[in-house]
Amino acid sequence: MAVYTEVPDDELAKFIASYDLGALLSYKGIAEGVENTNYLVHTEKGPFFLTLYEKRVAPRDLPFFLGLMEHLARAGLTCPTPVHDAQGRMLRTLAGRPAALVTFLEGVWIRRPQARHCWALGQAMARMHLAGRDFELSRANALGLSGWRPLYARFCARADEIAPGLAATIEQELDHLEANWPASLPQGIIHADLFPDNAFFLGDQLSGLIDFYFACNDALAYDVAIALNAWCFESDHAFNMTKGQALLKGYQSARALEPSEREALPLLARGAALRFLLTRAYDWLHTNADALVSRKDPQEYLRRLKFHRSIRSATEYGLEGAP
Amino acid sequence: MAVYTEVPDDELAKFIASYDLGALLSYKGIAEGVENTNYLVHTEKGPFFLTLYEKRVAPRDLPFFLGLMEHLARAGLTCPTPVHDAQGRMLRTLAGRPAALVTFLEGVWIRRPQARHCWALGQAMARMHLAGRDFELSRANALGLSGWRPLYARFCARADEIAPGLAATIEQELDHLEANWPASLPQGIIHADLFPDNAFFLGDQLSGLIDFYFACNDALAYDVAIALNAWCFESDHAFNMTKGQALLKGYQSARALEPSEREALPLLARGAALRFLLTRAYDWLHTNADALVSRKDPQEYLRRLKFHRSIRSATEYGLEGAP
Repeated sequence: MAVYTEVPDDELAKFIASYDLGALLSYKGIAEGVENTNYLVHTEKGPFFLTLYEKRVAPRDLPFFLGLMEHLARAGLTCPTPVHDAQGRMLRTLAGRPAALVTFLEGVWIRRPQARHCWALGQAMARMHLAGRDFELSRANALGLSGWRPLYARFCARADEIAPGLAATIEQELDHLEANWPASLPQGIIHADLFPDNAFFLGDQLSGLIDFYFACNDALAYDVAIALNAWCFESDHAFNMTKGQALLKGYQSARALEPSEREALPLLARGAALRFLLTRAYDWLHTNADALVSRKDPQEYLRRLKFHRSIRSATEYGLEGAP
Repeated sequence: MAVYTEVPDDELAKFIASYDLGALLSYKGIAEGVENTNYLVHTEKGPFFLTLYEKRVAPRDLPFFLGLMEHLARAGLTCPTPVHDAQGRMLRTLAGRPAALVTFLEGVWIRRPQARHCWALGQAMARMHLAGRDFELSRANALGLSGWRPLYARFCARADEIAPGLAATIEQELDHLEANWPASLPQGIIHADLFPDNAFFLGDQLSGLIDFYFACNDALAYDVAIALNAWCFESDHAFNMTKGQALLKGYQSARALEPSEREALPLLARGAALRFLLTRAYDWLHTNADALVSRKDPQEYLRRLKFHRSIRSATEYGLEGAP
């Protein structure tokens, strides 16, 4: 949580003046967000969200991310929408960084999601998958199957510092996933990071999805597998089948999973657990304990991975209907 | 800049429901503020500012701070005003911390103040001094003259790590100030920390003062001396007399300095420079370079102190009118 780039008041006032939003009234650096610098900006037209893209986001990906948000919003999904400046541009430069102003989405994220939140999340994800079908840009998943082994190679020598035997577990898992990963599942735009902090609620109503900066083209059911990992485990790391059932029911209320997706779900869930295990392990080994961003425990995902290895059928996640 | 205390969504929704502000719409942790945790909260009634008081603020002082903000706002000064809950309370508890909700003040703080901003700041400070005259509570200045030697004693052995000879300079200065500090200047409520980040502007108009958490009873002219230090030096540490003149003129447009205050100004300015030198030096020696809060260079105030030592009369700051 940090503001990496300070924006001077006069520079921001000039920046805001290039939009049709009236004068700048106030701006506050937001403590959320590990990847980018975010400001909540008030102008005479209301609140907006300003993002300055820091080094972890590749500038070449920004037209995809901003275009996707605009595409999804136009298709009726509630999500931040980039604002165009007077010259029509969504992507700008501010304080030496690529920058974009997007609409501000009211809502809070749920720290302790219940089954009803999982249902709503599942439905919103399916709607996002449907809305993304005719988006014309594409982006490979840098943190998909082909990215995992290179990422692991960057810290393999130190993996056992996190947990004894972790290196062997990861290597076995990589071998298994590379040999068995399903190649012909329905593809499309996935969010790829739909954790509870990226879904806003007003009361019990889901009010929108945010943070599309990991979005990419991949198997739609892999997004579901990520959400099962992110939403349906308790703080003691036990899987909550009621929540799994609700998430999958919510998803299928908008888009039915195909037989190939149902069959692949346990393997996709293993892959999703490994993906977050790998990035968290890397960050764990490369972040000081007292740094600006708080480290997330990689072992949570080691435990999830072991759980998914024990699953034989998606019905064990709560999936209903024909197998 | 940090959020020290995370507030869960359900706990905050319940907290907000105890005010007459409609439902909670969103809340974002603010990256500004070294002392406390701050959230920008949107409710159905508009934006509000939520502060959770961390360990550097003494709970016994909170009725003074909150009462003062309310008093000043009622007297017509633009500043955040505490909101009362349905039971009439301004001071509450949230996430295990003392907490208060105050009105949100639009405005931005000026990173590079010009003379016109110094004039406006001077006038707003004088108006605050006048508005504070009939405030019934009082609070001693813990960082006033009597607090400096005990604070210095906490790091004197390491002072020369910051600059060779710093210990001797501070000791001489303490001796001089303790022997010569004026005892009978007009007293009142001072802000005591009126740096540029605590004064908001909309365009060139000062839109309000914030952050009264150092406010206390002390010599009014000492507040002016702090502001001369905070607003009228350039980034190369040279005093800008045009700005000093503007600040003092703005102040005197609302409240004329008395002869005793005019005479004392150079000494008060030395005291103010020493006060910030001491707290910055202490923080410098007790903060890791990579900690959550960025350290401010104490030497800026050593340079200011040396400048003030060379001043013989307040006219050298730009003070006009009868001596």
